[in-house]
Amino acid sequence: MMQPAATALGLRLRVLAEGPDVAAAQVVTPAPIGAADDLEALVAFASECDAVTFDHEHVPGAGLRAMAEVTSVQPGADALVHAQDKVVMRERLTALGVPCPAWARVADRAAVEAFATEAGWPVVLKTPRGGYDGKGVLVLDGPDDAGWATAGAWFADWADRGGLLAEEHVPFTRELAALVARSPSGQAAAWPVVETVQRDGVCHEVTAPAPDLDPDLAAELTDVALRIAGGLGVTGVLAVEVFEVERVVQGVSRRTFVVNELAMRPHNSGHWSIDGAVTSQFENHLRAVLDLPLGSTAPRAPWTVMVNVLGPKAIEARHEDLYRSYLHVMAHDPGVKVHLYGKEQRPGRKLGHVTVYGDDLDTVRARARHAAAFTAGEIDE
Amino acid sequence: MMQPAATALGLRLRVLAEGPDVAAAQVVTPAPIGAADDLEALVAFASECDAVTFDHEHVPGAGLRAMAEVTSVQPGADALVHAQDKVVMRERLTALGVPCPAWARVADRAAVEAFATEAGWPVVLKTPRGGYDGKGVLVLDGPDDAGWATAGAWFADWADRGGLLAEEHVPFTRELAALVARSPSGQAAAWPVVETVQRDGVCHEVTAPAPDLDPDLAAELTDVALRIAGGLGVTGVLAVEVFEVERVVQGVSRRTFVVNELAMRPHNSGHWSIDGAVTSQFENHLRAVLDLPLGSTAPRAPWTVMVNVLGPKAIEARHEDLYRSYLHVMAHDPGVKVHLYGKEQRPGRKLGHVTVYGDDLDTVRARARHAAAFTAGEIDE
Repeated sequence: MMQPAATALGLRLRVLAEGPDVAAAQVVTPAPIGAADDLEALVAFASECDAVTFDHEHVPGAGLRAMAEVTSVQPGADALVHAQDKVVMRERLTALGVPCPAWARVADRAAVEAFATEAGWPVVLKTPRGGYDGKGVLVLDGPDDAGWATAGAWFADWADRGGLLAEEHVPFTRELAALVARSPSGQAAAWPVVETVQRDGVCHEVTAPAPDLDPDLAAELTDVALRIAGGLGVTGVLAVEVFEVERVVQGVSRRTFVVNELAMRPHNSGHWSIDGAVTSQFENHLRAVLDLPLGSTAPRAPWTVMVNVLGPKAIEARHEDLYRSYLHVMAHDPGVKVHLYGKEQRPGRKLGHVTVYGDDLDTVRARARHAAAFTAGEIDE
Repeated sequence: MMQPAATALGLRLRVLAEGPDVAAAQVVTPAPIGAADDLEALVAFASECDAVTFDHEHVPGAGLRAMAEVTSVQPGADALVHAQDKVVMRERLTALGVPCPAWARVADRAAVEAFATEAGWPVVLKTPRGGYDGKGVLVLDGPDDAGWATAGAWFADWADRGGLLAEEHVPFTRELAALVARSPSGQAAAWPVVETVQRDGVCHEVTAPAPDLDPDLAAELTDVALRIAGGLGVTGVLAVEVFEVERVVQGVSRRTFVVNELAMRPHNSGHWSIDGAVTSQFENHLRAVLDLPLGSTAPRAPWTVMVNVLGPKAIEARHEDLYRSYLHVMAHDPGVKVHLYGKEQRPGRKLGHVTVYGDDLDTVRARARHAAAFTAGEIDE
C-alpha cells in the first residue's frame, strides 16, 4: 500500500521480498528476494537505496545496523527495538512517564502468581518478541487456567532471553489508537485519534475520529503519542494503541487510557487515511523517512469508517475469487472504496479493507460493514 | 497514473511499453517492449491479458482488431477511430447533431480559401491524425499568412489520405471539458464539467467545477458528452473538450458551446479527480473497461484546481532535480498534492501536476499556481 503514494510523488520503490509471491512483490519492481534476517541480502539491497524503511518490524537489530552503514535506515535500530521487544517498550514507556498497564518481567509461574497478587487475575502473558495479531499472547484467568501448559513451554523457550512479560488485564471501555508521523529532523504530525474494534486479537474496524471522545482526552493521547515518537527517536509512522479505561479518582469517574502496543510503520489503524485524510499514512511515512516536510493530517469528511476484509473461516467455492464481490459491492454503493491486497485467501487473514466516508456516522458505518461483510462472504445480499 | 487505482483494486497491470524508459514501465511490472504498430507484439501482449486498454490513442485500427481476436479491447477500434481521425470525428459528431465549429475536408489551398469565404478568416488547418498538444494544428490568418508553406507540405503529405481538416476559428469565451466514463454494458457516469486553461495548445490549469457556469449549459454539455459516448460506443473514459462561445440569438446573447476535441482515455482535464472526486478517472476507467459498476463521480470539495508542471523553457542546474522543490512546496503548503511522473525533463513537457482543493476558489487557485510554478522553476519563493 506504500506504492500508490510513492508513484504519486514520483519516488521509485524497490522491495526486499521474503518470496516471489508476497503482495508487495506483485506491484513493486524490482523485488529481490531475501529473508529479514539474511544480513548479506539486507546490505546488498540497502546499498542500492537512498533510504530504507519497513512494512513490518521483524528485521533484527544487527541487520538494521548493518544497513545503516550503507544508507539511511528509518526508523533506526534504537527506535525500532521498542516495537520489537515488549519488555524494552514497557521499560522505556514507564521511564517516559507514559501510562501503561501494571507489568513485570517474569521468569516462571511463581513470578506470574506473585504479580497476580498485586495486579489481580486475569494476567496477560506475552512473549517479548514475535507476537502479531493476537499471537504470542495468553490470558491466564487464575491458577487453574488450562493455558499454563502453553505458558510453561514459553518460559522454557525464553529462559535464556530474559523471560516473559506479564501485564495487568485491563478492563477497558474501548480501544483507541493515536497515529503520528515524525521525520528525522523532528517535525511531527498527528492524525485524529481513532476508535478501533478488535475481533480475536485482530483489528476489524476503525472509526475516524473516535466518536464521543472527550477533546481533552484526545489531546492528551495525541500529546503522549508525540512524546513517545520524540522520546524513542521514531521516524516515519508510529501507531500507539491504547485501552480507554474508566478510573474513579476521588469519587469521580473519568475516562483515561493506558498504552497497549506500539507499531512503527503504517498501521492498520491508519488505513482509513488513504481515502479519509488529506495526506495518507503511507504518503507521510514516505515523506518522513525522506525527511521531507509532512503533509496535512486533516480528515476530509466528518466521519470515515474502515472495515477489514478477513479471509472467511470456511473458504467456499463462491469466495475463491474475491473480485466477484465487486459487481455487487460497487453497484450497491458507488461511494465505497474497496482495497484488495492480492493475497491468497486463508481463514482470518487480512485480504483487504473497505472505506466509506460521509456526514452521518451510523450510515457510514452500516455502508462500510455491508461492503466488507459481502466481500468476505459473510453475507450474500 | 492508472497504477495506483489498479493497486487499490487488487488488479494486476502489465504495460506494453514503447521503450524501457517510459514512465509507465518504471512503475508497472512486467513491461514488455513493443511499438504501438507492431502487430506481433500487440497480439502477444494481448493474449496474456484479461482486458486491454490504452493511455494514448495511437494504436492503429489493424492492431486493435488483431488484439480483439484474443481478448477484450476497450475502447474498440470502431470507437477509437473517432479519437484518432479528426475528419471521421467531425463527420460522426455532425451526424449525431453535436454542435461543432464549421468544418470542411480540404485537399488544397483553393479549398481552404473557398471554406474561408463562408467561415471567415482565420482558418484552423489540422492534420486528421497524429496531432497532440497543439502539434498538427495551423492557424492561417489569411492569404498572406506565413503558415502556407507548412500547409503546402501537409497537403502533399496527406494527398492520398483524403486531405486535411479545415475548421472555423472559434472566438471562445473560455474552454470547458466534460468527462464521462462508460462501460461495455452501457452504464455511464459524468464528472462535473470543468474549466480548462491552455497555453500554447497545452493544457495548463483545470478548475472543477467550472466557475460561473450556467447550470443548464452544464447539463446540456454533460448530456452531449454522454450522447457522444453512447453514440460512438466509447468504453472507459471519454473527455469532450469544448469552446464556450457567446452567441446572439434573436437579439439575446447567450452562452453555448461547440466541441473541439475528443479523447478516449483518462485525460489531463480529469487529473483533478485523483484527489478531488470520490472516484478518480483512472479508477472509473479501469472499472469501465472491466465492465464493473462505476464509482461515484461526486467532487469531494467545493473547488479543486489542478495545475500542470511543465518542463521549464530553459532547463537550469537548479531544476535538474524536481524533487528539490518538494522541500519548499511541502513546507509552504501541507495541503498541496504533488504528482510527479518520473519523466526526463524537456522544455514544455508535462512532468507532473499539483492539485489543491478547498472552500474558497481564489485561495485554492493561488495555492495550486504557486506550487506548480515553484516546482517548474518559474518562481523561487
